[in-house]
Parts: sequence; structure tokens; C-alpha cells
Amino acid sequence: MNFHYPSGKKYVTVDSTSKKHIKKSPTQFGKRGMSLEDELNESNQYYLSHGKAVVHKKPTPIQIVKVDYPKRSAAVIKEAYFRQASTTDYNGVYQGYYLDFDAKETKNKTAFPLDNFHKHQINHMKACLAADGICFTIIKFVELDQIFLLSATNLFYFWDQQKKGGRKSIPLNYVKKNGYLINYHLNPLIPYLDAVDDLLIKKHEGEHNAK
Amino acid sequence: MNFHYPSGKKYVTVDSTSKKHIKKSPTQFGKRGMSLEDELNESNQYYLSHGKAVVHKKPTPIQIVKVDYPKRSAAVIKEAYFRQASTTDYNGVYQGYYLDFDAKETKNKTAFPLDNFHKHQINHMKACLAADGICFTIIKFVELDQIFLLSATNLFYFWDQQKKGGRKSIPLNYVKKNGYLINYHLNPLIPYLDAVDDLLIKKHEGEHNAK
Repeated sequence: MNFHYPSGKKYVTVDSTSKKHIKKSPTQFGKRGMSLEDELNESNQYYLSHGKAVVHKKPTPIQIVKVDYPKRSAAVIKEAYFRQASTTDYNGVYQGYYLDFDAKETKNKTAFPLDNFHKHQINHMKACLAADGICFTIIKFVELDQIFLLSATNLFYFWDQQKKGGRKSIPLNYVKKNGYLINYHLNPLIPYLDAVDDLLIKKHEGEHNAK
Repeated sequence: MNFHYPSGKKYVTVDSTSKKHIKKSPTQFGKRGMSLEDELNESNQYYLSHGKAVVHKKPTPIQIVKVDYPKRSAAVIKEAYFRQASTTDYNGVYQGYYLDFDAKETKNKTAFPLDNFHKHQINHMKACLAADGICFTIIKFVELDQIFLLSATNLFYFWDQQKKGGRKSIPLNYVKKNGYLINYHLNPLIPYLDAVDDLLIKKHEGEHNAK
């Protein structure tokens, strides 16, 4: 299949008959102009169609005030307002595990500012974690073109300490050390379930040690 | 706390100090005028606030066409359309399990018509089940004031056989025999997680027998 980047540049696929290339798929770079949301939606579509996981972005919550019902055509919403979501944006199921996460972009090059999160999103993730869900955040440092998966527990650590006068961002070095770097690939574009696998191993080790 | 039905009829709470009543809470009747959706939202709120489960109804998906940004006030959506959801309405996490379900009402007294479901909802539930999620449907027979939880597997059986010329509804007797009757209670109003517990026991028995 031939396809093109929005720039019109032809995309060259790797010869799938070459064993050398099968073994280690080459690192891709983020599609220019694609938002993290688009990249994740495309990745989730890949995971869904390959029976690996069912993860969807939730629709934006809207407060509908006025709806018209024109004859012979669909209802038209004439007045509505954006509401603040009470949950994270993404959830779904992977190997029986409940996944719950948010995806955030920052242009900051040295740290991830905590004001990207709302209190209710943190509270929602805390509730999900208490119900034994797998919670994390996917952070994209846009200027560095680097994506990380950071466990909710790590995020809560920084969230909670900022109230006690702590710093208002998570240093990139901390994210590098405690999170999982996700390199762009071909299919899926953002193979974040590989990082979830590592997260699950860590979780089970923790449960084992606690016994 | 005293509260009233919309009819103005006073609601009498059970004396919580009486042991006799604690042991077996009396069967409640659906709040008149409340939709199944309202009843479930109230129940989910109860489960959330008591740390039992985190289950939310997904927002209705909307296609936004035109947004106005008046000065000094919130953005107003001026033209938008309802889109068909590609998933079920409810999902969440309970004891680490991924729950996924839809809630449907029928005025039919003898059977549940299958045209209450869309093909994409069924496909979504099939994908979730394949990813080892806990999938079911909550059915309310409005005229009988009875609510059942029916496993997705039971639903799929009827869904798939209708294509081969089978019946276009699930008989009430089948639902009674294979589903779980959920009696109205005080808190939560619809204690559907009790039925999920039964579903989980059945699932583990099945996995055990398969070994």
C-alpha cells in the first residue's frame, strides 16, 4: 500500500520479505502535524483491528441546551456548551486488565507542568487505582519528539507534593528514569502496550513481594 | 433524611438500628419517573463514593460544526449533530475487572426485542469479551418493573441466530432462567454488582473446568 504524509512526501514501506527488517522494525518519527490524540487514535485502531486491546477516547462531554428537529432531516443542536470531563480521556481493556489514562502534550523541554491536569482527573485515576485498574499518563514532549508512559503512582507523587509547597512540574530526568520511553513504530504508531506490559510485570512483582 | 417522590409521597426510611432490617434490606420499587439511565447513574455514584467500583456513562458523541466564541464568556456550540456511538454506553473497573455494558428498556411484557441493539454495539462487546472483559447488558422490562443482568454471551446467542432466520427477540422466560434478577434496593438503587459477582464466579468455574 502506498500512502503519503500530509506534506506529499511518499512513504516507503519496509520490504516485509526481508528477514533482517522483520527482526527489528525501524524506529519511526512522529507524523508531522499529527496531534498526540490522532496518533493514539490510530494506534488504538490498530490494536482493535488486531484483537490486542479495546481502547477508545471518550467523547467530549457537551451540555445541550437547544435542539431543532427540521422535517425530513436529522436533529440539529443549536445551542450547547462544553462541559469539563469528570474522568480521563481514554479507557479500555487489555488482556482482562482495565486501562485508564490521559494523554498530554507539552512544549516544555525540561519538565512536564502539572497544570496540564485537573484535580478531578487525578481523583478519577486515584479511584480507578483503588479499584485495581491500570492507570497511567502518556506524555509527549513535542519539541523533543519524545513520548513517555508514566505510571499514575509517579504522577500522584508530584501532584500531592506540590500542595506542600513542592515543585509544579515533573522534571524530564525523572520521567526518563521512572517512565517508559515509547519509540514511534510503523504499526502501531505508538506501541504503548509494550510499556503497559512492563508496568504489569512491575505490579505483579510488587504484589508478590507484598505477600 | 426525609425525601419525597416526585408525586409528593413521603419516603419512609427503614430504621437502620433494627437488626432485623439490616440483615435483609427490603425490596424497593423503581423510582417512578426515573429512567433506567438515571437509576444506573445514581447507583454508579453510590458505588464510586463507597470505593466499590468506578463506572461512568460515556458522553453522547457529537459532531461539532460551528462554534462561536463570544467575548468574555464561554464558547457556544451553534451547530452540531448527534453521532452514533461506536461502543456501549457504560464501562469501568471493579476489583481490577473491566466492565462493559449497555442498559436498555422495553415496554414489551413477554420478550426483549433485539432491535434495541445496534450491530456496532454487539461488535464492540464481542471485541471486549475477546480481550477478556466482563460484558453484559442490563434490561429493564418497564411494564413489569423488573430489571435483569444478562451476560453478553447469552445476548450473542440470540443476536447471531436471528440472521439464520431465528426469532428477533429474547423471550422473558429465557432472561429469567439465564439472567440475574436485580431487585431494587435502597443503596445502591440497582445493586447490579451483586449479579456481576455471580457472573465472575461462573466465569472462573468455566475457566477451571476448561483446564
